[in-house]
Amino acid sequence: MKKIVILGAGVMGSAFSIPLSDRGYDVRLVGTHLDVDIIEEIHQNRVHPKLHSRIPDNVTPYTVSGLEEALMGVDLLVLGVNSLGVNWAAEILSPILPLNVPVLMLTKGLMGDRKKISILPDVLRNGLPADYRDQVQISAVGGPCIAGELASRRHTCVVFTGQDQTLLDQLCDLMRNPYYHVWTSTDLVGVETCVALKNVYALAVGLVHGWLEKEGTADNGAVMHNLAAAIFAQGLWETAYLVDYMGGQLQSVYTLPSSGDLYVTSQGGRNSKMGRFLGMGMNYQEAKTRYMPDETIEGAELVLDIGPTMEVLFERGELDWARLPLLRAMASIVSGQEPAELPWDDFFKGNFQN
Amino acid sequence: MKKIVILGAGVMGSAFSIPLSDRGYDVRLVGTHLDVDIIEEIHQNRVHPKLHSRIPDNVTPYTVSGLEEALMGVDLLVLGVNSLGVNWAAEILSPILPLNVPVLMLTKGLMGDRKKISILPDVLRNGLPADYRDQVQISAVGGPCIAGELASRRHTCVVFTGQDQTLLDQLCDLMRNPYYHVWTSTDLVGVETCVALKNVYALAVGLVHGWLEKEGTADNGAVMHNLAAAIFAQGLWETAYLVDYMGGQLQSVYTLPSSGDLYVTSQGGRNSKMGRFLGMGMNYQEAKTRYMPDETIEGAELVLDIGPTMEVLFERGELDWARLPLLRAMASIVSGQEPAELPWDDFFKGNFQN
Repeated sequence: MKKIVILGAGVMGSAFSIPLSDRGYDVRLVGTHLDVDIIEEIHQNRVHPKLHSRIPDNVTPYTVSGLEEALMGVDLLVLGVNSLGVNWAAEILSPILPLNVPVLMLTKGLMGDRKKISILPDVLRNGLPADYRDQVQISAVGGPCIAGELASRRHTCVVFTGQDQTLLDQLCDLMRNPYYHVWTSTDLVGVETCVALKNVYALAVGLVHGWLEKEGTADNGAVMHNLAAAIFAQGLWETAYLVDYMGGQLQSVYTLPSSGDLYVTSQGGRNSKMGRFLGMGMNYQEAKTRYMPDETIEGAELVLDIGPTMEVLFERGELDWARLPLLRAMASIVSGQEPAELPWDDFFKGNFQN
Repeated sequence: MKKIVILGAGVMGSAFSIPLSDRGYDVRLVGTHLDVDIIEEIHQNRVHPKLHSRIPDNVTPYTVSGLEEALMGVDLLVLGVNSLGVNWAAEILSPILPLNVPVLMLTKGLMGDRKKISILPDVLRNGLPADYRDQVQISAVGGPCIAGELASRRHTCVVFTGQDQTLLDQLCDLMRNPYYHVWTSTDLVGVETCVALKNVYALAVGLVHGWLEKEGTADNGAVMHNLAAAIFAQGLWETAYLVDYMGGQLQSVYTLPSSGDLYVTSQGGRNSKMGRFLGMGMNYQEAKTRYMPDETIEGAELVLDIGPTMEVLFERGELDWARLPLLRAMASIVSGQEPAELPWDDFFKGNFQN
């Protein structure tokens, strides 16, 4: 029987235990220091307090102090921490991760160091000891997957991405079931760029909810879907530019990793919720503190993290800021420098004529 | 003062009169034989009965018998009939359209003659007298635009497409205002293919509403956004294939014409509504007759129209059916040959590995 550790007992990490459990594996769900209450609740009544789903009996909950024990004899480590936890994960795993255990990352994001933008599998790799860096096999999951739906065994279509096709095929065989449909892609950098950026563009689409609340429904019942759709399209257009810059493939943009994932993220969730607050005119830090103190707003974290690096890349002429007006606007809005307004006339530069 | 005729007083044709009216033009809204009641109502109380919006005073309503009179001295003809009305429009316009009047089409669709698939500007052109065919300038509008939102002056971003950049620029200058944002594209065949196909893929996304109604919300509150997003992504993937086949540009797929327009169409509207009925297990003809007898379901009309031609193109080897499993499934579902189920395992062929 396969033994699988999931590190991170947030909604996505925990939801991922369901398809693994359904395949009959020995699943070990290890909470981080942020997940202590969650692990306690699963121990007590087997219901995840945020996911509101029952965690099956073949999923054993652990606190982080049990990570080393949980890792013994495992076939796969699934990393389900949020984007802020990748460096922490590298640190805690460094002394105890068995060299031959492949890693599958659920975490989505990009990081900047004021020199370059990196995908998270590279951040994790670079955080591991030197002798691990060349050997550890890191793959990742991309595509539209709301955790609560996966946990309820609703049809979900995703892409496993990595550099080793044989490993990807093995991971697929491990995971697939009648509701979890998996494709593979060796465009690791493209998929990772897409799935990270979708969070900030979903935040942008979410602004519309706030604007609608301010302006109200029109006399004829009209809302603001046209506007949301235009922001959605500009998001994909900018994603295509950045995927190309990062060395990825355009196909990832108009399939599951970008268009599918941005679609699902725009239908609701934390980024969309924060977008609404920003659209209503609230300051990001204020809205975060007041309404979403315990939630990670991945789209906001992303622009705050890579924003300074992008400015360096603009200055160096490596990135063309005229191609990324929405991303720049979101960075200004989230950092509180600009009100929540978008530069329409700068959209779609380099594509359509304006 | 510019004089502009809009032929077709359905929701889109009529909504288009608003930005034209706001620019102060003399707008003549000519109803077809299907719009007699609408024109009567606008005459009586100036409110469009389906759009639920006030039609401004500088928009003069005409019945179709007044078309010739309305066309006198005009600068532009806007064609706002539905896809089934293009041949009719060509016929009625043939004896009376002044040669020098450019045409801007709002109508979206594709047509098949069991030999090839044509875009509607070509269908219109071919329906006009021989001496017109080479001279009449036909442009078209694409992108995410729900009529009711445009009529309420909500931000709307669209693309004007045609072969003559100078004319496109003139049309932009004519139309732009603070809420109607216009870009131009000379990828006429690409844009037209995108905006036509979005109707059938929105019908496919709409199936999810029906499935959700049958299965219900999960215990943890989960709905089926993951599934809708996967269908959305497969729609774009197939659109990219068909745009390439038709000779269009991929950029149109991941910008306003396909991704933006499919996004907005998936948020509601007639295709989505019919998708729900089909997802619930209803037969297309039955659902149409019973619940939507007076509405044109563009996505269903599209697959019924181009389906037989596509089968010819599959047989000839010009199109690869393995690349269009969703379009084929929708053709089977709409024609009543197959139940509303989708072939997951056939998705994304040629992109990801499965």
